[in-house]
Amino acid sequence: MKIGFIGLGIMGSRMAMNLLKNVTELNVYNRTKSKADELLEQGAVWNESPAKLAKDCDVVFTMLSTPKAVGEVAFGEDGFVEQMKKGALWLDCSTVNPSFSRMVADSVLKQNKRFMDAPVAGSLKPAENGELVFLVGGEPTDFDEIRYLLEYMGKAIHHLGSVGKGSSAKMVVNSMLGQAMVAFSEAIALGKSLDLDNDKLFEILIGGPLTAPFIGLKEEKLKNSEYSPEFPLKWMHKDLNLAAWSAYENNCVLPALNAGKEIYSGAKANGMGDLDMSAVYDYMINKLNNKQ
Amino acid sequence: MKIGFIGLGIMGSRMAMNLLKNVTELNVYNRTKSKADELLEQGAVWNESPAKLAKDCDVVFTMLSTPKAVGEVAFGEDGFVEQMKKGALWLDCSTVNPSFSRMVADSVLKQNKRFMDAPVAGSLKPAENGELVFLVGGEPTDFDEIRYLLEYMGKAIHHLGSVGKGSSAKMVVNSMLGQAMVAFSEAIALGKSLDLDNDKLFEILIGGPLTAPFIGLKEEKLKNSEYSPEFPLKWMHKDLNLAAWSAYENNCVLPALNAGKEIYSGAKANGMGDLDMSAVYDYMINKLNNKQ
Amino acid sequence: MKIGFIGLGIMGSRMAMNLLKNVTELNVYNRTKSKADELLEQGAVWNESPAKLAKDCDVVFTMLSTPKAVGEVAFGEDGFVEQMKKGALWLDCSTVNPSFSRMVADSVLKQNKRFMDAPVAGSLKPAENGELVFLVGGEPTDFDEIRYLLEYMGKAIHHLGSVGKGSSAKMVVNSMLGQAMVAFSEAIALGKSLDLDNDKLFEILIGGPLTAPFIGLKEEKLKNSEYSPEFPLKWMHKDLNLAAWSAYENNCVLPALNAGKEIYSGAKANGMGDLDMSAVYDYMINKLNNKQ
Amino acid sequence: MKIGFIGLGIMGSRMAMNLLKNVTELNVYNRTKSKADELLEQGAVWNESPAKLAKDCDVVFTMLSTPKAVGEVAFGEDGFVEQMKKGALWLDCSTVNPSFSRMVADSVLKQNKRFMDAPVAGSLKPAENGELVFLVGGEPTDFDEIRYLLEYMGKAIHHLGSVGKGSSAKMVVNSMLGQAMVAFSEAIALGKSLDLDNDKLFEILIGGPLTAPFIGLKEEKLKNSEYSPEFPLKWMHKDLNLAAWSAYENNCVLPALNAGKEIYSGAKANGMGDLDMSAVYDYMINKLNNKQ
Repeated sequence: MKIGFIGLGIMGSRMAMNLLKNVTELNVYNRTKSKADELLEQGAVWNESPAKLAKDCDVVFTMLSTPKAVGEVAFGEDGFVEQMKKGALWLDCSTVNPSFSRMVADSVLKQNKRFMDAPVAGSLKPAENGELVFLVGGEPTDFDEIRYLLEYMGKAIHHLGSVGKGSSAKMVVNSMLGQAMVAFSEAIALGKSLDLDNDKLFEILIGGPLTAPFIGLKEEKLKNSEYSPEFPLKWMHKDLNLAAWSAYENNCVLPALNAGKEIYSGAKANGMGDLDMSAVYDYMINKLNNKQ
Repeated sequence: MKIGFIGLGIMGSRMAMNLLKNVTELNVYNRTKSKADELLEQGAVWNESPAKLAKDCDVVFTMLSTPKAVGEVAFGEDGFVEQMKKGALWLDCSTVNPSFSRMVADSVLKQNKRFMDAPVAGSLKPAENGELVFLVGGEPTDFDEIRYLLEYMGKAIHHLGSVGKGSSAKMVVNSMLGQAMVAFSEAIALGKSLDLDNDKLFEILIGGPLTAPFIGLKEEKLKNSEYSPEFPLKWMHKDLNLAAWSAYENNCVLPALNAGKEIYSGAKANGMGDLDMSAVYDYMINKLNNKQ
Repeated sequence: MKIGFIGLGIMGSRMAMNLLKNVTELNVYNRTKSKADELLEQGAVWNESPAKLAKDCDVVFTMLSTPKAVGEVAFGEDGFVEQMKKGALWLDCSTVNPSFSRMVADSVLKQNKRFMDAPVAGSLKPAENGELVFLVGGEPTDFDEIRYLLEYMGKAIHHLGSVGKGSSAKMVVNSMLGQAMVAFSEAIALGKSLDLDNDKLFEILIGGPLTAPFIGLKEEKLKNSEYSPEFPLKWMHKDLNLAAWSAYENNCVLPALNAGKEIYSGAKANGMGDLDMSAVYDYMINKLNNKQ
Repeated sequence: MKIGFIGLGIMGSRMAMNLLKNVTELNVYNRTKSKADELLEQGAVWNESPAKLAKDCDVVFTMLSTPKAVGEVAFGEDGFVEQMKKGALWLDCSTVNPSFSRMVADSVLKQNKRFMDAPVAGSLKPAENGELVFLVGGEPTDFDEIRYLLEYMGKAIHHLGSVGKGSSAKMVVNSMLGQAMVAFSEAIALGKSLDLDNDKLFEILIGGPLTAPFIGLKEEKLKNSEYSPEFPLKWMHKDLNLAAWSAYENNCVLPALNAGKEIYSGAKANGMGDLDMSAVYDYMINKLNNKQ
């Protein structure tokens, strides 16, 4: 079975590396070739375009940034879907909205190829360690067929139902991520305005029952204003926006999520889009609240 | 040293019980006497009014529901503060806003009595088990003097600075509590609207890095729509309102907290004020989103 | 010049009627034919499909409900754009987001046909009276060519720039509409909770400097809980959602608009989508605030 | 009848001037004496303290900035209420929350003096021109007695019921003011992000059915970034905060008002508190959206 991987950013490069360690051949493509260097050194095979990569592969993974990027790579000029073999399977690990996944699936199926949405929960470190959580939508037989591949990259593989359900679950998961970070940021901003000691607040909150555990992993970075991107803030904003859109499409009322979305929007509008999503903490305290 | 305890509700009764086990005499008072029954059986001494209780005690604890209730019991007709002995110490464990704590402290000090704000994090079970977290504001010498009493009721005792700092930290802590519950409720509402299986979502989220651990303790209750109050929703709403007010007083911008506050407000306006604060989950899914 | 009009709903039927009075021949199409009855009686020419209509016309107007509806009628199976004559001009009066208008324009131009976005401000009555406000994006020469047609339907015709700018201005205008209605609804809800007399509040606010004048036109209806749709609430919600999406695409932070959007979302989720957008007043007072 | 006026800020000084023109003697007091200069030149009588002023007067007006300021001047050290003659009438024109007005009234009545809340709608110009709108709460006989005095300062005098109802109506009115300004600011921010011409948008919106008329009065100032305070932003923020608090006290859910409140909060946190409330427009466009 020939496997291809398109999209070697922060997440994709680590995922591909874990695949590479476990399969006999891995075909890769990325818009910026240099990002593939390490993979190529380790034996991955470079392809000049998504279309060329797709021609040979039985399974194609994509890990791209936005629905728009997925649409262009898949169906734009020289899009790869047309080049896929009949019956070949495309697994899209990108975070997109479920109605987009379903629309994509419809187009793919019409060409007698197969599609699954398989986005992941987890950022840089879990990607590196093969400890991602896969949220998968698609046919059960397809799922059974490729599950072992996902296990090379993830520690938990959830099959949530038909196509779109992986993306649906991803919307849910990332809304938790975004809102937990906002809740913590506002809590500390409030504490600061009340003249409480930051370190003391961190001590009380982090590791406690009220704080999402992932905040603990960011503790040192928050304290040191280190915001090198593990998960860029602009994608967090994008995901909350897709979640809000999906909520609209499905008649779901989410006042707090929309409020949170606008906070990330403000951080992005103030130049923080390429920092880690945890920089919303910095935005909340130093810009919105101007407590420098 | 004679100790008194005023306010024997869900929390106060458990806290008083843990005190009672460790001190030689505990004086108690509650507006509804029947709530003191168990304590009296175990040897607590009943007092006919807060004022009578205060007359004899060296240390008075209060655990009341709102700033207004504290104000009335302390300074209203037959208020207890006037009856306190010179030098006696009042520890207010109620959740109130820090400017209120400071205002109270000013009045108490003018009468040559002492005051500390000592609200607690934790609900029914931790109160029962003596595992509360105390957030204390006040003079270091006062703190040293009564710390051992707090240890009978709590597993962690934080001294955060001068008077008001305990209440300040409580605002921060309860904002985390309220917002974490909202984030989870909205996430599940979104998932439901996207036709995901509830149990599967609970499995993915609860115990994971993105979910505040206390949600796990509520899992079965949420699944069974059991909302008997451990921490009544109306007090959660009250606390977010006090946090918003404190933010106003200190020039702090909190868009998401205010959005969350209005969700609890909606739940309360729809008759859920006396249910557990986790009933906001029910409100979000069945009322606001009307997904019954 | 042969003119066609597709989409004869609340707005479209009135706009077409005003066109019909002024042009020698008007070709019409609507999914539900019965809605064309009055127009046909007055001499409009029925067409069996958008495609058939488009074949003959030099100018095609569309007035449809959503971007999705526009996409299907224009580019779906038997879509009309392919049938348009080279050089023919499509004026889309539907309320859609500007990036959608631009995407549509690109497709139309590739086929050597012309496109303008020309959404309108104003609801049923202004549509009936030919007093709409047109917000137009497109080539100046195209604008000059068809301006007289718009004047049959509108009292003010604004050319705002290139394609997409009409839709852009419509996003702005409808955000004002939606938010003004929310502001008034919340103000009255607050007044009611403070036990003020409703009629007195209406007297103070309506016609005053703080209240958008259109609220005055709805006064009697609001007082009588009459919500027959002049502009259905679900489209108000749709438009705020498109505005929020456009804001996202252009890095614009809109916390209040997003809060307002979720209020309409709640009204829709509670079964009010087909009522007039002013029913958000009823939702605010009777459901969200439960003050029946 | 001897009349006194305490509080000669932007509003109070103009109101007092209109009183002065119509009554035989006006006693005035202000913390900063220089603000009384013009009034004294015109014949007003200076008083060294609120208490001294109150001693002689049958009717005392106050126009102060916050509930706290009212509380201090009235009941603090050397507070004036104690000095009022039995049966004298205090009219508080300050914008405060209704529960505060009621609490004040209770204290005043206990001393056998009379109280009415009589806040005003309108800013600098209407104050100058005697065209304010009075929103009055209190006894009908009291209202009949002093109505003519209010008519010297206002063009419309509404008696809304018992004490507190004036303040209640003021909460409603100012929520409209604040939210209308936010709606306009966000609309223009959206338009700017969509590359629309500002002047064109102003032309379309201002004077139209969707825009609160008062925005028209601010048009030139908005265009010229002139924000000299007619109604300082910090008081707008204060009033929305009092409205939110009053909503809390009366079980009223106001998601959009709370979102708007936080926008003013952000403007204030970024140093705009002493500018006109319309500076929220500048904040929205240049800070939150960073579109300088």
